[in-house]
Amino acid sequence: MKKMMIRSLVGLAALGIAAGASAQMKPEDMIKYRQSGYTFMSWNMGKIKAQVVDGTVPFDKAQVQAAANLIAAVANSGMGALYAPGTDEGKGWKETRLKPEFFQKMDEVKEVGGNFVKQANKLAEVAATGDEAAIKAQFGETGKACKACHEKFREEE
Amino acid sequence: MKKMMIRSLVGLAALGIAAGASAQMKPEDMIKYRQSGYTFMSWNMGKIKAQVVDGTVPFDKAQVQAAANLIAAVANSGMGALYAPGTDEGKGWKETRLKPEFFQKMDEVKEVGGNFVKQANKLAEVAATGDEAAIKAQFGETGKACKACHEKFREEE
Repeated sequence: MKKMMIRSLVGLAALGIAAGASAQMKPEDMIKYRQSGYTFMSWNMGKIKAQVVDGTVPFDKAQVQAAANLIAAVANSGMGALYAPGTDEGKGWKETRLKPEFFQKMDEVKEVGGNFVKQANKLAEVAATGDEAAIKAQFGETGKACKACHEKFREEE
Repeated sequence: MKKMMIRSLVGLAALGIAAGASAQMKPEDMIKYRQSGYTFMSWNMGKIKAQVVDGTVPFDKAQVQAAANLIAAVANSGMGALYAPGTDEGKGWKETRLKPEFFQKMDEVKEVGGNFVKQANKLAEVAATGDEAAIKAQFGETGKACKACHEKFREEE
């Protein structure tokens, strides 16, 4: 049990948790900020999808690049600090869907989280080239990275 | 009246409104995305404030830079597309606080919005240098740019 706690703390540190800063923030605010980040990111994922996957909106390099930059900036913002132990319960804008497994499988969290950051950074790089086919492919990889975390650590709605 | 409508449309276009994309999005979703973007940005403003203004959290260049990049990415994400006429009423995560004046003073909206983008981009540039005093000064300018819009176009809570 003690070993698990230590591993959890190491995992949380790897995700950028600043104990001091977290202590000052209410759990419901952490959940609200998390929900805000993911929701705003989903708007930007949707813009790229419409332009390079669905083709329902004409491709606009600057818009896709701005959206990819936003996704990368969210990925790099240190959201691990918003996952204090116990925040698998509570309400931000709405009830959190975080599964308690999140705090029991820190190695996996670190892996899926690290891969998301990697794929999001690559999406921003590829978006800067304006190569539609390459953006579409990397958008797919980024979506898979999102989904990996959802499947493991997010309750179905 | 017609002239005002034309001016509004020109103003909305300048803010990046894509009529096609907007038409597909529900007003409540626009409001929710707006609220999410500003809320997530406020978390990142708070991190910079704690480190370079209040000094309650030790200065960490990488964290401040990531926060500034996020703020700039939100500023450049084309949120004008989320301000369809009529969305001064409605509920996203909560009731919108957007004043109807927003749609009547498009020149002012363009001015305060443009200045926000400018100051946020400069904050990201300054954050990359790691110069705490310069970051503090530019953080102040960015905060003023936020406040200018709040005072003109956002209802008090």
